[in-house]
Amino acid sequence: MQNRVTSLFQIQYPIVQGGMIWCSGWKLASAVSNAGGLGLIGAGSMRPDVLREHIRQCKAATNKPFGVNVPLLYTHTEENINIILEEEITIVFTSAGNPAVWTKKLKDHGCTVVHVIANTKFARKAEEAGADALVAEGFEAGGHNGREETTTFCLLPIIREMTSLPLLAAGGIASGKAMLAAMALGADGVQIGSLFAASNESSAHEQYKQAVVNATDGATVLTLKQLNPVRLLRNAFYEQVARAESEKATPEQLKELLGKGRARKGIMEGDLENGELEIGQVAALIHQIKPAAQIMRQLVTEFNTSAQTLTNFTL
Amino acid sequence: MQNRVTSLFQIQYPIVQGGMIWCSGWKLASAVSNAGGLGLIGAGSMRPDVLREHIRQCKAATNKPFGVNVPLLYTHTEENINIILEEEITIVFTSAGNPAVWTKKLKDHGCTVVHVIANTKFARKAEEAGADALVAEGFEAGGHNGREETTTFCLLPIIREMTSLPLLAAGGIASGKAMLAAMALGADGVQIGSLFAASNESSAHEQYKQAVVNATDGATVLTLKQLNPVRLLRNAFYEQVARAESEKATPEQLKELLGKGRARKGIMEGDLENGELEIGQVAALIHQIKPAAQIMRQLVTEFNTSAQTLTNFTL
Repeated sequence: MQNRVTSLFQIQYPIVQGGMIWCSGWKLASAVSNAGGLGLIGAGSMRPDVLREHIRQCKAATNKPFGVNVPLLYTHTEENINIILEEEITIVFTSAGNPAVWTKKLKDHGCTVVHVIANTKFARKAEEAGADALVAEGFEAGGHNGREETTTFCLLPIIREMTSLPLLAAGGIASGKAMLAAMALGADGVQIGSLFAASNESSAHEQYKQAVVNATDGATVLTLKQLNPVRLLRNAFYEQVARAESEKATPEQLKELLGKGRARKGIMEGDLENGELEIGQVAALIHQIKPAAQIMRQLVTEFNTSAQTLTNFTL
Repeated sequence: MQNRVTSLFQIQYPIVQGGMIWCSGWKLASAVSNAGGLGLIGAGSMRPDVLREHIRQCKAATNKPFGVNVPLLYTHTEENINIILEEEITIVFTSAGNPAVWTKKLKDHGCTVVHVIANTKFARKAEEAGADALVAEGFEAGGHNGREETTTFCLLPIIREMTSLPLLAAGGIASGKAMLAAMALGADGVQIGSLFAASNESSAHEQYKQAVVNATDGATVLTLKQLNPVRLLRNAFYEQVARAESEKATPEQLKELLGKGRARKGIMEGDLENGELEIGQVAALIHQIKPAAQIMRQLVTEFNTSAQTLTNFTL
């Protein structure tokens, strides 16, 4: 099947691997691209020289299209974007910030630009800025998350109603069935994070991947809403945050408690007690660490089987 | 199409109208049942004598199956259940409480019992108690809501994985496309609340229905988490609650602020400032007040059209 998403990125399947901090290096991105999806290098956790190295390694590991995700809330954004342009990357996903600032520059250099949004306000801003497609990310997604708390089930049709741009669904998708559901709700494709965070090729620590596999329903929580809301696994660090919040900590006190490098500690170094273990609610449905290519095959097979089953439903 | 849900209730379409306080009287329930779905009288806001009156009126208004929803957190539960049995109601939905207490009694009297759950723990309890089916209600749903905050997109496959009971999806469903998405995620049918809360036959005040129609994304919020989490429209009453919470109000103080009859004031009396305006996130997708029969027809038509479209997707 070809649709607007596969055409836009020149890929086989409308499946994008989310560019996640501490998970999405060249190994994961190239594995997903080689399997027919779109791999994204997650620049959010990379210093500019590290990003350049990952881009070069990824070029060596695949001749298929891949892209880079740039969360606009981190430092190094300008340096990272310059490297992306120097390295002639043509697909850029921006997230966690105002699309107006960078979209034009990237488009002027011929990039396809996709912006991640969680509400109609930023969807409109992204469209006005000239974005080629949107990722609509629901409340259930891991990591940084919108303040409106609109879920994938509601957000997709809300965004579909207001724009004709190609639309990718994110948040809650870890199976072919969920992919099919996202398509039914108006998406043209999906962006999958958590499932690939726990893949063999993810740069995350094995302890972190195992914690994802062990997660059950209710294991994650959206927290630190006074700073930048983030979904993570409940652990000792989260309990500290929850206690501080119940004792009415100020944003400054929370910032101090959070400190620097919490996500690195949790995801990259595997410190399950003191680290920030960002992951989506869908962790409860991830039961095994698998190679990215196998994940891709299973998504496609399950999608096709489920679509066939649904055709037998006529009311 | 016949499936496990249509067979269980002896109805034409696997669509249940949620039994909502101050909305779901005999008028709404009979209209939905007459249109081929399953109408539910919402006993949560009814004194026992009022419930009996609604049951009798509903019997007079339809010869199709209908049921009663009993939220187990309100008073009058025992009296209401006795009336349900005296009036020979054979379909009972229980919610907001422990299914162990009432399921056996209802089953012993020959009732089909369905329990509304928001997590695996209560799904297991309901199954053990002998429930005939489950409603899995996601975080986006209006009114009282689970503490795990698991969304419909994640909750449905999580519950589908752990039980083979017939499964109804609730939360975020206000279209045939959303119904199809729920089926893709493992549901056998849907329970629709908000869309019917804003129907012509809903007992809610016109001002409340208009507020639902006017809602956009981000208009609702899950609040009062220290008491019993509830999703409602942001209004002056909610702002009071938010202020009290930010000033670290105790549960007792919040209870006092909430007072008695807030939902009645908002939903039934149309006091948009001081009332509790319970509704789901999907309000952002409800643009018109319509008759229940028209809603039913549109759900079915859109479901069928969308299912046909999806069959053209093969990856």
